[in-house]
Formats: sequence, C-alpha cells, structure tokens
Amino acid sequence: MGVGVRIAELSRRSGVSIPTIKFYLREGLLPPGAAMAANQADYTETHVRRLGLIRALIDVGRLSVAKAREVLAAVSADDISPIDLLGTAQHAVIRAIPADPDDPATRAARGEVTALLDGLGWQVDPGSPALDQAAEAIRVFRALGQDDLLSLLGTYAEAAALVAGREVAAVVARQDPDRMVEGVVIGTVLGEALLDALRLLAQQDASNRLLRPPS
Amino acid sequence: MGVGVRIAELSRRSGVSIPTIKFYLREGLLPPGAAMAANQADYTETHVRRLGLIRALIDVGRLSVAKAREVLAAVSADDISPIDLLGTAQHAVIRAIPADPDDPATRAARGEVTALLDGLGWQVDPGSPALDQAAEAIRVFRALGQDDLLSLLGTYAEAAALVAGREVAAVVARQDPDRMVEGVVIGTVLGEALLDALRLLAQQDASNRLLRPPS
Repeated sequence: MGVGVRIAELSRRSGVSIPTIKFYLREGLLPPGAAMAANQADYTETHVRRLGLIRALIDVGRLSVAKAREVLAAVSADDISPIDLLGTAQHAVIRAIPADPDDPATRAARGEVTALLDGLGWQVDPGSPALDQAAEAIRVFRALGQDDLLSLLGTYAEAAALVAGREVAAVVARQDPDRMVEGVVIGTVLGEALLDALRLLAQQDASNRLLRPPS
Repeated sequence: MGVGVRIAELSRRSGVSIPTIKFYLREGLLPPGAAMAANQADYTETHVRRLGLIRALIDVGRLSVAKAREVLAAVSADDISPIDLLGTAQHAVIRAIPADPDDPATRAARGEVTALLDGLGWQVDPGSPALDQAAEAIRVFRALGQDDLLSLLGTYAEAAALVAGREVAAVVARQDPDRMVEGVVIGTVLGEALLDALRLLAQQDASNRLLRPPS
C-alpha cells in the first residue's frame, strides 16, 4: 500500500466490512481518505492500522463508539502529556456507575478506598473515576452481606500494583513519544481484558484443586 | 418486612424504581410476589435482597439482562455444583469476542495461552471462554505491534493467581452451600470491577512516580 487504495481493498486488507468502515468514517473514528473523484477516496497503510486499533478498542476493550472516539482523539493529539493521556485511556475503560455521592454507604466506601491508598502511599488523582468504581464495588460487597470477601482488599491492591508497575515501566522504556502513546492506550485496554481472563482461569485452577475430589 | 408489602414499598426499600421492578419481573430476573388481589402482589425481604443482587450484576458488573438472568437461574438452582456455578458466573463476565478460530494468528495466540498455563501447571477447562478472551487479547497485542508489552504475560498470570487463590479460599471457607453460591457469583463479578479499578489507580501511582517532574 505504497500508494492509496479504494475502500474495497481497505476492507479486504483490514478484515473490516465496507459498511462498518463507512460507519467509522461517519462517526469520525477513521480519518477520511484522500479525495480522488466524486464518491471515491484513497486509503493508506495508516487507515489499515487505525482500523486494527478501532476493533481492538471496541471488540476486546468493549468500548462504546463514543469512548473509542475520545481515546483516538487523544492518540492523535500532538500536545497531550503521557499523564493526561493515561487519564483519557482510563476514563474510557471505567465502568459508568450511577452512585449517589451523598449516600452514607457510598461515602463510607469512598473513605475505605482512600484509607487503603493512603496506607499504601499511592499518589492518585483525587478526581479519578477509578476511585468511584473501586468505592462502588466495595459498597455493593457490603450491601450484599459479603464483607468477608473484602478481607482480600489488600491482595487485590498488591496484585494491581504488581501489574501496573510493570505496565508503566514497559511503556516508559519505549522512549519514542508516539510509541508511548500507543502503549498507554492499547496496554490499558487490552491489559485489562488479559488480566481479567487470566484471573478467571486461575479461579478454575484453584477451584479444581480445592473442590474436585481427587481421582 | 415480616409480612409482604406492595410494590411501592418494595421500590422505597430497595431504591429501585417501580417501572424498573416491573421490567425485572417481566424479564424473569425477579420472582413474582404472592398474588393478593387483581393486579396486586406482596413482596418480601427476599425480593429486596434479590433486587440488590440484580443491580450489582447489571450496574457494577456491566452484565446484560440476559447474562444476569443466566446467573440468577444458577443461583436459584438447588443441584448445581460449585464448579458448574463458577463456570456460569465466569461465562457471564466474559467478553464476547468474535475471533475466527481458523485464523493462523488466533491459533498461534491460543497456543501461547496453552503453553503459558501448561508451564504454570494450571488445571483449567479446555472449553472455557476465558481461554478465548486471553488468546484474543494476545493476538491483538501482536497484531497492533505491541509485542514488547507481552513480556508482562507472566506478571499478569502471577497477579491473577495471587488474587484467584485467595478468592476461592475465601468462598470455600464459608462452608454453607447457599453462602458459597452467593460468594462465587458476587465475588466473580464485583471482584473484577474492584481489581480493574485498583489497577488503574496503581497505574496512576506508577506514572506519577516515573513521569512527573519532582516538585
């Protein structure tokens, strides 16, 4: 694809159907191709790579089209700092949770998260929606009478720190700013899918060891 | 709520609106109340607790109504084994990923997951959709040219095993079968939301340490 190709060829190379490509173009996820003639445009290798990223965000990352657009805009911005980009990538994967901030149980759970992170000495953005997601999970564990499972809170934090420290170090090691941007976005989204899947598989292993009668 | 109450009172106590309660009744997520007169039914404490669980699955766990119904049916089944219940709970949180099993890159990624788990000696269900989710994440990391981030594969597995071992042990420690069932379902769904949120917060901490200029 040294020179541009038509949409049919873009579809063939990317594995994304023509109607879906047209949808991404309309929604502003995919930049337009170079206009050639009426109703014709040429696409390049950049479009193939962008389509791969869009599918990763939407299929594996379960991002909405709106969230994917937000992340892709941040990836394309020239002047975004790595910290701000991380915020955008995190915002995209966060679960939208309709918690009532004035509810006493919500406030208590939020206090519990703050105490945990203070104890660990973590430096986090106090306005991060990840704090809301953690607090809401804790509130609901308690509301459903599952307090004993929260004895694992420190273990969850330990596992999270283990993964996150290595993730950030791997992205920073790239040095090239464009590659760091890619790494933040892709690592945040795909890393979550990978960690979640491995946790389920590790649960199977632990269950099989603890619960299956030895054969 | 020693005796049953009307739907308005059920709404007040659960914090779930009457139209939403009626929707859950129609969709079979909430069992019907005891019929009292034409168009009237009585609800009990069991309904309040069930509504809390439904909201946890849908709001925090991001489950679809269909997946929540599947999980709730398993919770209500008398004769389900803990291993089968774990399978149902895991199936509910898995990301539906339209991977082509005959694609060489998909097969290679699947082989990579199998080699990883064999190396760790994990006993997992070879038909588990969690294997597909892990393989698809790996395939897309590679397809997007992010191979270096897969040097963390072992770290992801280590963190997953740390969490899952404690999760399963905590649920098994309950001994009461009904409480174990609750723990599997709630722990699988809420634990994922909690771990994911803490990973994002740990990323912020690591980024702040590595990237922010010291003040």
